[in-house]
Amino acid sequence: MTSYISHTTVDCADAYALSRWWRTVLNYGEDPDDPNEPGHEECMIHSADRRHRLLFIEVPDAKQVKNRIHLDLRPADRARDAELARLTELGATVVADRRHTDGTGWVVLADPEGNEFCILRGEAELTGRPS
Amino acid sequence: MTSYISHTTVDCADAYALSRWWRTVLNYGEDPDDPNEPGHEECMIHSADRRHRLLFIEVPDAKQVKNRIHLDLRPADRARDAELARLTELGATVVADRRHTDGTGWVVLADPEGNEFCILRGEAELTGRPS
Repeated sequence: MTSYISHTTVDCADAYALSRWWRTVLNYGEDPDDPNEPGHEECMIHSADRRHRLLFIEVPDAKQVKNRIHLDLRPADRARDAELARLTELGATVVADRRHTDGTGWVVLADPEGNEFCILRGEAELTGRPS
Repeated sequence: MTSYISHTTVDCADAYALSRWWRTVLNYGEDPDDPNEPGHEECMIHSADRRHRLLFIEVPDAKQVKNRIHLDLRPADRARDAELARLTELGATVVADRRHTDGTGWVVLADPEGNEFCILRGEAELTGRPS
């Protein structure tokens, strides 16, 4: 064992609002050490088993270019397109549609602060091809 | 359950080289579907339990600004400063030293392609303060 990923940090303008949004997307809980309170400049959220954690930190600079690091999400219990509808209903915007006619592919979305992320096919839709 | 994080994608110039570098940093394995071969434009690596995965994808555009999303690493079995020495020996460069005189704090590093990441205190060094 060497180092492990403690958490992934997301620079943002509103840590509370963005952490709340991602909590809804991923069904994550909040960390009592970095509570999700309005005005709190650092908000940590985590998966139910606490193995995945996201830390939202407020920074003065605005997003300028396409993020060089992004998250790829897989629906556990529904189809990609049903999850896409849920995400856009929550406020995600479509950046690029990479779906193919054979059912494979993904959609690039942006969260309310413009951070790109991808929604992949649901687990039941996987057919051998990885994406 | 809704969606979960399948993996985190890192845009890069050399997917093979950068995936090899991060494999050494995190002691990750490689994914047989996205092998770590020279010239392969997509290289996936994962933790021993496959719960954390990183996908390196080659893109034409170069890194321009500070990444808005970054990884925070915690040494599992050594001190922060010992791990810092290992990482710089591997080729990481120091971007900012946020260590405090009381032993808390972290160091911001950059990987060989300039992607920022942080090295936190080791598990044995934690003293109640989270960072």
